Order: sequence, then structure tokens, then C-alpha cells
Amino acid sequence: MTAEIISVGTELLLGNVANTDARDISERLSELGINVYYHTVVGDNPERLTKAVEIAKDRADVIITTGGLGPTCDDLTKQVLAQAFGLRLYFDEKIAEVIRGYFEKSLHAVKMTENNLQQAYLPEGCTVFNNDWGTAPGCAFKAAGKHVLMLPGPPRECNAMFNACAEPYLRALSDDMIASHSIRVFGRGESSVEQKLRDIMNELTNPTLAPYAKEGEVLLRVTAKAKTAKEAEAMMEPVVNKVKAIIGDFVYGVDVGSLEETVFSLMCEKGLKLAVAESCTGGLFSKRVTDIPGASSMFLGGMTVYSTESKTKLPGVERALIEKEGAVSRAVAVAMAAGIREFLGADIGIGITGFAGPGGGNGLGAGSVFTALCDSGGSFVRELHLGSGRNRVRTMAVNHGLDMLRRRLTGLSTDFRPDM
Amino acid sequence: MTAEIISVGTELLLGNVANTDARDISERLSELGINVYYHTVVGDNPERLTKAVEIAKDRADVIITTGGLGPTCDDLTKQVLAQAFGLRLYFDEKIAEVIRGYFEKSLHAVKMTENNLQQAYLPEGCTVFNNDWGTAPGCAFKAAGKHVLMLPGPPRECNAMFNACAEPYLRALSDDMIASHSIRVFGRGESSVEQKLRDIMNELTNPTLAPYAKEGEVLLRVTAKAKTAKEAEAMMEPVVNKVKAIIGDFVYGVDVGSLEETVFSLMCEKGLKLAVAESCTGGLFSKRVTDIPGASSMFLGGMTVYSTESKTKLPGVERALIEKEGAVSRAVAVAMAAGIREFLGADIGIGITGFAGPGGGNGLGAGSVFTALCDSGGSFVRELHLGSGRNRVRTMAVNHGLDMLRRRLTGLSTDFRPDM
Repeated sequence: MTAEIISVGTELLLGNVANTDARDISERLSELGINVYYHTVVGDNPERLTKAVEIAKDRADVIITTGGLGPTCDDLTKQVLAQAFGLRLYFDEKIAEVIRGYFEKSLHAVKMTENNLQQAYLPEGCTVFNNDWGTAPGCAFKAAGKHVLMLPGPPRECNAMFNACAEPYLRALSDDMIASHSIRVFGRGESSVEQKLRDIMNELTNPTLAPYAKEGEVLLRVTAKAKTAKEAEAMMEPVVNKVKAIIGDFVYGVDVGSLEETVFSLMCEKGLKLAVAESCTGGLFSKRVTDIPGASSMFLGGMTVYSTESKTKLPGVERALIEKEGAVSRAVAVAMAAGIREFLGADIGIGITGFAGPGGGNGLGAGSVFTALCDSGGSFVRELHLGSGRNRVRTMAVNHGLDMLRRRLTGLSTDFRPDM
Repeated sequence: MTAEIISVGTELLLGNVANTDARDISERLSELGINVYYHTVVGDNPERLTKAVEIAKDRADVIITTGGLGPTCDDLTKQVLAQAFGLRLYFDEKIAEVIRGYFEKSLHAVKMTENNLQQAYLPEGCTVFNNDWGTAPGCAFKAAGKHVLMLPGPPRECNAMFNACAEPYLRALSDDMIASHSIRVFGRGESSVEQKLRDIMNELTNPTLAPYAKEGEVLLRVTAKAKTAKEAEAMMEPVVNKVKAIIGDFVYGVDVGSLEETVFSLMCEKGLKLAVAESCTGGLFSKRVTDIPGASSMFLGGMTVYSTESKTKLPGVERALIEKEGAVSRAVAVAMAAGIREFLGADIGIGITGFAGPGGGNGLGAGSVFTALCDSGGSFVRELHLGSGRNRVRTMAVNHGLDMLRRRLTGLSTDFRPDM
């Protein structure tokens, strides 16, 4: 079964945004064993979209569209696809109710305008994909021997609806089942991981093993196609074990959400409370921990100490220490971790200080960061040189803070051994 | 003149990377007044690439390919394009010398393998695009009334060669230029903005006016095509003014980066210092302000007060107040704003408390948020009901905090008037 992704939106053709929807859906389709042969991007133009659909009908079994489902007069994807496959649109009263309800719930923020109800028109006979993340519903239908699935354009909605609606729909199309495991790696780069696993990857056909570079980490996906889940599991298990043996304790989890979710689970399991003092990461550590619903069960809070004055509000972080050692130093990182732990009465304190760049870095250089952890057993610190790129440096600094926590909570050394 | 971008690479179809080359080239083409009608992504497969080229020949005046110019046996773009346009490849001795020289200069003494010379084969009669950033040269030719340009896939090489080679080549083909302005709107949804501007949008052809939904806000782009920049400017000015008159003070800037950058500039201009106390947004406000390089010139820091205990560390935020009013209340939001202002000695304090959801919200409901601002002139607070979706609620809560600042700093009321 082959698929084509048609992304609809003039903003893509103007270069306002990259087509991350096509990337994300492609990654998921590859997990489902569906080959993607083409991506097409077309503007909010019914004639050109019609032509793109005609071409895709000839060369793909599954057409997945993203974008053009919204309330504006530019949003024509449903109309064009329905027409291309000879289907009428009907007004779905249930969906209209959902849309009205969406606006009623956010009564004080936005009033529903009538054009929003345009979103309730759907191709007759389709499977409706409810949108719990926005107002535009998606849908799927089979016509002329092809499966057509339509998803909204905003990446958050597109991804959530792929998982909730499109994936189950696509899974049901095949007798074979596809199962996969995600092995998450922090502390080794993609090329290093790939080099170590290249021979295994090349010799595997089912299951397959493929690396993906994620933000500051590597994801390895093992995917098996089989008649039953049990069979697939039996095929994947030795591969997962082999990868773990080769990559070692840089593997932080299998089928886990993220480093922060891994830390969250470990902290909750042990009933421990966390606090963080951040300088260069400016709240990003705290933000990532509190992305997790229920974070308050293990996270007390933190301070963004973006000035010397604010650093000295932490117990034990003295102006004299900052002046002697420098705001970006091993000693200040440790003092921040110990200080926030004491200030908020946490079991574990994290301190992060560094030069996110661009510019700054007196002597140490932009990208120099110290991450520290303090608990009842002592203080630990990493000195890092994370290169350039403000966002990347900040992301990696948070990852290292989380990795220290993960290692400390699982009895490993918090030291970081660079790849030589 | 219309263009199509064909990006060649199986890694794009597997979802390993997003097609940033197409985004970057599209943005540049729109500046050059060349309309991009399609992007196509195809794998390293000569049959499917040939079909994609046949389609593009029928619907575009300019075809720009990215990727597939390298030394491996997968790299077939030049061969396929030359064949599709009936051109032979010739061996370019000068390019071969450049490639040999690249390896000789290479510090790590990488030995050149013979397959690298494959890159010296080019379509006869083409304009060669030298690659000073890697080994694979690009090229351009005109055949069958179409212009074909080939650029390498790695984004750094692709962008650099677009600027150095493709742009001068394309500029020479046209005498029109394109200019645009971005009008940023917060506090009104895309459909509401679109409804107000629909008549204007429909009657405009040059310049054009188009709305884009961004995360929690709306961007309106005015684009004009003219002989000179001055002429384009004169065409856009009345449209920008008309939009400002209709949307009013929900327009927070023209050609500005974001709400946080607008606030950053205003704070720096006035020499004021900011501090924030966050509950439900968990550090996101602080993170977004410190995304801006140089944020330390106006941002002192903040606290993420994710537990009652941590809230009471702020001066004036008493346990009794929290127990009486509730942690999510008008009174606690104001006390947090005043408390962090005093604690860090800031000119303006921001306090945010709410239920990000899912779950929680005793009585008030998930999505209920209070944002407060405190400065020497008093305290101001917004009560918001932001609906569902943890990330969305958090993003919107931060946007409202920034919007209060923007309004306060420009002499507007900080009240939020919902769209009724």
C-alpha cells in the first residue's frame, strides 16, 4: 500500500512555514508499514488542488491531505476532494453542535462567527474524525478504490488527530499488523549511534531498525510486520536487547515519551519533590517539566534567576561567590542547586547556569553551561560545551539537567562521558 | 512566471527531516516575485523522479530541484533531469579539479574516492553553479521553454548556493519585484478577523491581503508586486492603514517578530525591568521572554510557584489568602504580581495563575486563568476562560500576560474586551 500526502496552504508555498505535517505523518506511516512515494504541496486554490488530487489518484492507494479544513473562504479541501471523488457534502448537525460547544466553553475569549459552521459540511458516507484540539473536524472515505483521509493543518491538531483517528483507520485496512518500539537515546549523536548499529540495520528486513535525529537526542525505531502482536513482539525483542547492549546506559527508555516524562515517573515512584534554579535556560526546564499533566505531584517550582540580584535571593548564593567564581561556574551551579532545594524544601535541586549565546561567554565561550544536581547524598555537576545556536544550547542544557536526574534516580553515575 | 520545487530524497519521505529547503527557497522566490504553485517531494528513485519532472514540465515555467547531486549511487537528479529535457551529460574537467582540490584542502586528510568525480558530470550547455560549501556543484539550463535549476540538498549548501547562484540567475529573468508587510494581531481569532476583512480581501488583487492563524494569534500579510520597492510601498500603505483602522488596537505591530519581542522593545525603550510569578504556565512566560537574545537587559527573573508552599515564598502571598480565595483567583494573581515585583525589585510584575487542565478547576473549570500586572500605578487583572488543551491554555495565558504589558506600556487599557 502506497500513500501520498497533499498539504494544502499558500503559506507553505510562500515559505512562511516548513511542512512539518508531511514529515510527522510520513514518520508515522513508515511505522505502519505504508510506503510514502510523494509529498505534494499546493496553495489554497481549487483548480490546482483538483489537479494535484487527479495526479495522486493515479499513483497512490491512500491520499492524506493536511490543511484547508478551517472556517475561512480559503479553506476548500473538503469541497475539492469530495468533488474529485464524486461525493456530495452534507451538513453534520452533530459536528455543528460540537463547534458551537467549543465556542460556548471559551465564552469569554472568542465569539463564534457563522463561517465556523462551514466546517460542519462533510463528504457523504465519510468517517468523521472529531477534532478535540480545535474546531475543524477531519474525515476519511473510500471511493474509486482509494482511501482519502483529511486532517487539519495546524501541526498540533494534525498530529493529535493522526494518532487518535487516522492511525486506527489505517491499521484496520491491513490484515498484517505492524508493531514498533521506540528506543530513546540521550548523550550520543545520530551519526555515532548509526555507525555503531549500521551492520545490524543493513542486515535487518523484518523487523527493521531506523534512527531518527530528534531535538538533542536520538530515537531508534524497531518495527515488525506480523500476523499477531505476539509474533511481532517476539521478532522485536532480540533487536531491542541487542541495541540496549550496544548503546548501553545512553538508552534512557523504551516506549517512553521523553526525558522529562521518564524523570517524572521516577520521581513519582520514589515520592520525591523537585525544584530548579535556572539562569541561561530561562524557565525552559520548568516549562518542560510542567508540560506534563499532574507535574505538581513531584514539582514544587523554581526560579529563573536572570540577574545577579535575583541569584542572590537563593540561600547560599552570595554576591561574593558570584563575583569570585563568575555567574557561569561550577561553584555557582552547585550553589544554585543547593539554594533552590533549601528555599523550596525539595528533595532534589537542579541548578543550570551558562552562556546561551550569541555573544557573551567571557573566556568560557558561548555554549558553555554548568548543570548541577543536589540531594541528601551530595552535589554533582557537569561542565558542558554545547556549541552555538541559542535554542539548541538551551534545549541541550535542559536535557543534561534531566539526564543527571534520570541517572541519579536509577543509581548511575551523573558524569557525562563525551563520545571520543 | 511560476515555479515548482522538486525535492529529491527518501529521507524526506520517511519523515526523518522536514523539507526546509522548499520553505527557504519559496520565501526567496516570493521576494523575487516568482509564484510557487507546487512543491513535490520524491524519493531517490529515477522512475518516480522522471514522472514528477514530466508533471512539473506541464505546469511550471521554472523547475528548481534540491538534493540528489552527491557522489553516491542514489544521487541521480542530474541524470534524470538531463534525460527528461533531452540533454547529454559531459564531464567538466574544471569542476573535477575543484572537487579534487576540496579533498586536498580538507584538514582531516580525507582521501577522495573515485565516485566523487561523478559530481563533475553536468548537462551540456548549462550554467554551472560552483559549490563553495561542499563538493556537489549545481547548475541551470533552459530547455523546452523551461528554466531548470538544480541545488544540493543539505540546507546550508542549498541556501548559500541559492543566494550566490540561483538568485542572480532568476533576477535576470524578470523585471518585477515583490514586497510585503506582516500585520500582527492578538485578541481576535482568525475567523473573526477574516470576517471583518473579507470584503477588502476579495476586492484586492495587487496588493493582496491574506490571514494566517499563528499560535494564539493572527498574522495578516499584505503583498504587492511592482516595478520598484517605492511603488510597492505606496500600494501597500493604504491597505495597512485600512486594516489598522478596522482591527484597531488588537494590531500589536507591523513587521515585528512576536508579542514578546514587542514587549521587549517597549521595556528597553523605557528602561524598565520585568519579573514574573507563574503557576499554571510553569515557566513558559519566562522561557518566551528569554528566547530573545539580550533579554537580561529588561528581565530580572521569575518564579514558577507550582505548589502552595512555593507561592508563600513571595512577599504578600499568605497561606491564609490562598486558603480564603483559592490558589486560582483574582486576589492571588494580583498578590503574585505584586509579590514578585517586590521580591526581585522590578518595575513591573506579572502574575499568572490558573488551571491548565486537563482535570482540576474546582468550580471555575479547566482553562480558567487569571493574569495580573502590577506596577507603580496600580494592579490590573484579567479573568480568562481559555477552553481546553493544556498547551493551548498555557500559550494563551502567556499571550494575555504579554498583551497586558504591551497595552500598559503603550497607554492602552489592560482590560480584555471579548469579541461579542
